[in-house]
Amino acid sequence: MRLAELAARSGFSNATIKYYLRAGLLHPGEAQSTTWAEYDDSHVRRLRLVRALTEVAGMSLETVRQVVLAVEEAGSEHEARGAAQWALSREVTDEPTASSLVRVDGLLARHGWTVHADSPHRRVLAAALDTVEQLGLPATDELLDSYAQALRPVAELEVSRVAEAEDTTVAAERLVVGTLLYEPVLTTLRRMAHEAASAPVRE
Amino acid sequence: MRLAELAARSGFSNATIKYYLRAGLLHPGEAQSTTWAEYDDSHVRRLRLVRALTEVAGMSLETVRQVVLAVEEAGSEHEARGAAQWALSREVTDEPTASSLVRVDGLLARHGWTVHADSPHRRVLAAALDTVEQLGLPATDELLDSYAQALRPVAELEVSRVAEAEDTTVAAERLVVGTLLYEPVLTTLRRMAHEAASAPVRE
Repeated sequence: MRLAELAARSGFSNATIKYYLRAGLLHPGEAQSTTWAEYDDSHVRRLRLVRALTEVAGMSLETVRQVVLAVEEAGSEHEARGAAQWALSREVTDEPTASSLVRVDGLLARHGWTVHADSPHRRVLAAALDTVEQLGLPATDELLDSYAQALRPVAELEVSRVAEAEDTTVAAERLVVGTLLYEPVLTTLRRMAHEAASAPVRE
Repeated sequence: MRLAELAARSGFSNATIKYYLRAGLLHPGEAQSTTWAEYDDSHVRRLRLVRALTEVAGMSLETVRQVVLAVEEAGSEHEARGAAQWALSREVTDEPTASSLVRVDGLLARHGWTVHADSPHRRVLAAALDTVEQLGLPATDELLDSYAQALRPVAELEVSRVAEAEDTTVAAERLVVGTLLYEPVLTTLRRMAHEAASAPVRE
């Protein structure tokens, strides 16, 4: 397809697509002459991923460029999903304490979770535990274990649906969008579960 | 105790405490003369709740005032927790669709969850489902059911710890702080669970 059709199918303007091509966010089409290039479904999918990363995940274009390159260079679907997932990691402003990092490692070990040593989520979780403790709410291992146990079957189901995707770009898009969009579903259901768990026994 | 000791124990300045008294965020002490009043532990607890609501939950003082009044007037601990919990509800800018509201009701009914008809979380959840669908990710009942199943035992554990609190103000504080502070713990663990669920079968 030509640029105009890619624009129509992706919902981006011609000018934006040209900008993304120059910025390395979109891979070049196949040049048919000096004046036009042929684009295909991979370009439509890539633009959908860029839209998800900017509009849903609120990433800067520079971060999106890094994610897109990582997805492109990933040797497997698992790596591609990891590249997208890690990029969603919250910034940790305060360095987590060593004791919280040890607790995170212990939690992962108890549940047999394989999480990469460089995963940013380790530090994010350790910093979250530090904040909890600073405010005088001890995060007991019992509670952390109950979270981990509860989340494993949910994650299996979620990952199985992402893995049905036709290629790595689509899988990465689904993971990013799904991770972010389902977070409010999960946290709101937790608040409703508090009410449900509280009502029958307390009144 | 006198105002100076209340200030020392709560970490607020004399001036801030006087402002909170005038604004109705803090109940008056027992007047001992025209120049001083006696404060007690209930004032320390109230100030801790105000701190949690403003600093952790990021609420405006006017919202805090409403929560504090609702906790004060609550006829039971369950009601006090509900007042605090509901105040944490996200603002829903777009009115949710009727079909999503029906789905939320169906979900609650399938799991036998007692959630108040006026709970703001119903609309928040329905709006979140609308967003998911608008972005082309169908939120199947299977997935919602797996979330609900996973969260119920976690919520039971969380509520049981809040219920150990000595009075309604402390219970409300623990619920607010716990709800907000554990959210990043839960969402980060979900991301790690994705990696753990993805790694062994995909590589």
